[in-house]
Amino acid sequence: MAKIYAYGIRKDEEPYLNEWAKNHADVTVDYTAELLTPETAAQAAGADGVVVYQQLDYTAETLQALADQGVTKMSLRNVGIDNIDMAKAKELGFEITNVPVYSPNAIAEHAAIQTARILRQSKKLDKKIENGDLRWAPTIGREVRDQVVGVVGTGHIGQVFMQIMEGFGAKVIAYDVFKDPELEKKGYYVSLDEIYAQADVISLHVPALESTIHMINDETIAKMKDDAVLVNVSRGPLVDTDAVIRALDSGKLFGFVMDTYEDEVGIFNEDWQGKEFPDARLNDLIHRDNVLVTPHTAFYTTHAVRNMVLKAFDNNLALVKGEEPETPVKVG
Amino acid sequence: MAKIYAYGIRKDEEPYLNEWAKNHADVTVDYTAELLTPETAAQAAGADGVVVYQQLDYTAETLQALADQGVTKMSLRNVGIDNIDMAKAKELGFEITNVPVYSPNAIAEHAAIQTARILRQSKKLDKKIENGDLRWAPTIGREVRDQVVGVVGTGHIGQVFMQIMEGFGAKVIAYDVFKDPELEKKGYYVSLDEIYAQADVISLHVPALESTIHMINDETIAKMKDDAVLVNVSRGPLVDTDAVIRALDSGKLFGFVMDTYEDEVGIFNEDWQGKEFPDARLNDLIHRDNVLVTPHTAFYTTHAVRNMVLKAFDNNLALVKGEEPETPVKVG
Repeated sequence: MAKIYAYGIRKDEEPYLNEWAKNHADVTVDYTAELLTPETAAQAAGADGVVVYQQLDYTAETLQALADQGVTKMSLRNVGIDNIDMAKAKELGFEITNVPVYSPNAIAEHAAIQTARILRQSKKLDKKIENGDLRWAPTIGREVRDQVVGVVGTGHIGQVFMQIMEGFGAKVIAYDVFKDPELEKKGYYVSLDEIYAQADVISLHVPALESTIHMINDETIAKMKDDAVLVNVSRGPLVDTDAVIRALDSGKLFGFVMDTYEDEVGIFNEDWQGKEFPDARLNDLIHRDNVLVTPHTAFYTTHAVRNMVLKAFDNNLALVKGEEPETPVKVG
Repeated sequence: MAKIYAYGIRKDEEPYLNEWAKNHADVTVDYTAELLTPETAAQAAGADGVVVYQQLDYTAETLQALADQGVTKMSLRNVGIDNIDMAKAKELGFEITNVPVYSPNAIAEHAAIQTARILRQSKKLDKKIENGDLRWAPTIGREVRDQVVGVVGTGHIGQVFMQIMEGFGAKVIAYDVFKDPELEKKGYYVSLDEIYAQADVISLHVPALESTIHMINDETIAKMKDDAVLVNVSRGPLVDTDAVIRALDSGKLFGFVMDTYEDEVGIFNEDWQGKEFPDARLNDLIHRDNVLVTPHTAFYTTHAVRNMVLKAFDNNLALVKGEEPETPVKVG
């Protein structure tokens, strides 16, 4: 009977782990909330594979400790593999899988909701209400349907975002280096400069590449319409944060949605209550009325977490059975 | 040359008043921020008609003062006419218009955004971030696309709300006493009991009638799914607020969106800062993490305000010219 051991299982993952186990009565599933370390590796003794998810590095030492238990089939519940010592993994003969797509909608919905909130001045209005000021004027909203929405990057997430914006009745234009034939046929694509010139809302859905890092900077912001809304739920480095702050200060930008931040590593997903907040610039952004900061949580929905868990276990079982997993990672 | 005088013009209305005046160079437009009272009525001397909007009553005395200036053509920028002394208006020969529809989208968009925010636990997440807690777990979101959305009332606003929810990918079902033939053909309609049994989100878009007052009560809430989200951006009296609070306390309801409140008159659109808040129940709701209260602001968008101003002036000019206005009010 196959046996899979899972590390770092959070409370919100348990129902989906149990769902998978129930549908795979021929597999023994066991798990812990602890992360995979040289010390905890021994817990996987007797398992055929492990399912994991952590920011913590998968060091040479950790991988060795796991291999010492005879376990070299490792399935990540997330996409990122930067924290794996790949040379060591190769040396030890590891087979690894990840989950590259878990829910484009989670991220696209978040972008849409936060965009709409900026247009409605929702943070300012909520604060007024919280403080007992129930006057509506002058906290007036802009309707989504009145906006021209420029979508930069028309992959999975960008396309879902487009659908949501069109559901609101907005006019959508798009830019991508790689054009989707269906979208091209429908006439969505314009140049990047046309995006900047025409869009009231500009939402980024591209990877961080040499060509896209700091693509939003003083120069490109200057090309934008006055009172534009900038939305970055993709990758922090796409945006020159200082340039955005200048544009917020000058009133050029109406608002800014940020779920990612160029300096987020070591800051996001940590609790800074009662400690000195480590980034004054981020702290300032968090407390602005026309900025909505979330700490890389756009992905974090029940739908996404369920997919992360189920797909990781599916992948691991395939490895265990010697079958081809759906999304293998190149090791080495 | 025709002359129109406008009362109670707010800063956010001025651009649209100026837009109308510019497009009607043959009409003299003058205005004040003051409301129409027996004292300010004299400011309309020489005008052919007045454009108004206020919660303050149009009393017999006020109407008389206006008639004394020879002005009996009055155009409301809003819909409500409850605060007009109609008997007196009839006696004095008043002709009155209102603006019954200014932007269904303003209200439908607000309902959609607030619904999505409840599903995302956005208020709890925002508070965490504001306090320096940047951990995402356990504040997990539910995706809109995974919800069955039950729409009660399929008029202008309900239909726009349906479109937005479908843009997110949600499954929409609907109920109305008066069935829209197009929607019926597409199979949207179910019984009210089926709405309660199947919907994860229930959004009300019906008027307050004898048959709808407190339609949401202990009994109907008991028929709902666990973790349902209730949305009322229509009329406060539709909801038995105490029953909703019981359902929030028991955990039956996942959250509650309220833009209207059965006891809102005299409380909403007032500033209670530094004063004793007049309604303990409302105060409690405002400060709950899974309740989003807005003080009847769903309508309040630039699109709506523009329509309210332009349509009221169009109506008033029609009255002045002796033409049939688009939306006359029955006087008496």
